[in-house]
Amino acid sequence: MQIKRFFINKLALNVGERHELVKEDYNYIVVVTRARVGDSIIIANNTGYDFLCIIKEITKNTVTIEIKEKLQNNKEAKLNLTVCQALVKGDKFELITQKITELGAAELIPFTSTFTVVKENTNKTERLNKIAEQASAQCGRAKTLKIAEITTLKNLSKLLSNYDLVLLAYEQNKNSLKEVLQNSHSAKSVAIIIGSEGGFSKEEVDYLEKELKNLKTVSLGARILRAETAAIALSAAVMYERGEMS
Amino acid sequence: MQIKRFFINKLALNVGERHELVKEDYNYIVVVTRARVGDSIIIANNTGYDFLCIIKEITKNTVTIEIKEKLQNNKEAKLNLTVCQALVKGDKFELITQKITELGAAELIPFTSTFTVVKENTNKTERLNKIAEQASAQCGRAKTLKIAEITTLKNLSKLLSNYDLVLLAYEQNKNSLKEVLQNSHSAKSVAIIIGSEGGFSKEEVDYLEKELKNLKTVSLGARILRAETAAIALSAAVMYERGEMS
Repeated sequence: MQIKRFFINKLALNVGERHELVKEDYNYIVVVTRARVGDSIIIANNTGYDFLCIIKEITKNTVTIEIKEKLQNNKEAKLNLTVCQALVKGDKFELITQKITELGAAELIPFTSTFTVVKENTNKTERLNKIAEQASAQCGRAKTLKIAEITTLKNLSKLLSNYDLVLLAYEQNKNSLKEVLQNSHSAKSVAIIIGSEGGFSKEEVDYLEKELKNLKTVSLGARILRAETAAIALSAAVMYERGEMS
Repeated sequence: MQIKRFFINKLALNVGERHELVKEDYNYIVVVTRARVGDSIIIANNTGYDFLCIIKEITKNTVTIEIKEKLQNNKEAKLNLTVCQALVKGDKFELITQKITELGAAELIPFTSTFTVVKENTNKTERLNKIAEQASAQCGRAKTLKIAEITTLKNLSKLLSNYDLVLLAYEQNKNSLKEVLQNSHSAKSVAIIIGSEGGFSKEEVDYLEKELKNLKTVSLGARILRAETAAIALSAAVMYERGEMS
């Protein structure tokens, strides 16, 4: 049986220490996944390492773990992928958060633009962080998806200027995604920009193209993908092209 | 504004005819999307053609359309992609149905295997068909995803023997997905086999490898993808590799 994995963000862990975990950590470890005294579990804390722990004691509200070993974790993608996603309805945003975490993305940047119907994130960042942490634990990552503050499309031009490659998914474009990606194998950091259900205005595309010299607009093919499908499929394509799905 | 698209499966359509649509077609066209008399709409009927229609009359329960033009539709993928998916919980199966339709898959074959927890499809085929048809209409396809009867893993060996390439997603395999796909560009038909949450038994993998000479087991990378993520991401990777996302 596989050792159960848990994600406890920002909890400093050192071999030999004991920690008493309460509330949601207790709930998830003891109630949801039914770990028992004597079980080995792995806890990741966003440091890039796995910590092998033993459950020493369980009370009505607490679970005490002892840290036995600090392990290398080799599940992080070598490529630094950031997904910039225009706001979409809550359940879709949650789906994107979960799926791009599994696919190995490093960061998610929510933004507003002219055609976003949703104007503020209906998801509390806390909830999105929890979804990302659980997805990280489940897929074996030792880091989680960083979820940035909501920004604006205009501001993306500042945030993304240092990336090696920025891809803007835009239906009306004829650049071949495959050609662009095959010609960018040296890019260590890639950002993708996905619109909301309404897509982008011509002005927004022109603005980003003018401001970001590292930007390529790409079509995702003949079929018009929903926003969340575009985010997941383009992330998968980038990771595939870079050997991260092999 | 874009012309609204609808999918009415198996309705024979000929230029010049009038059709009175009722019930769910009426509901979707008039109530949900608020089409009005005089509006142009496109109806696809799984023939591979789009039919440009005018709404001639709307009553309390009926909408009458007149077919003006039969149009070529070039949104179908050239590659014939079949997704064989072990049964997973209802909402995940619906997600897979919708997403692989958008990505251009031709067929979905649900199956049971040793580790499937769900033993019968909790989704009525009718509901899955509706999800696929709406996804087809939305992404611009003139055909919809064919949803096969539930079968068994053993039976897949018969159903898939004529495919040019069959990919089995299996964590414990070290074949490179990218290498396999890059060496199979002549394959006109590709099937992918995705397990349930529990994955496959060693015996099942051995059985399929023995029975299907066209089968390659492939790993999807370091991170363990959930079943539905694997189905969507592998479909995206195959379509991307074959130029269907460019």
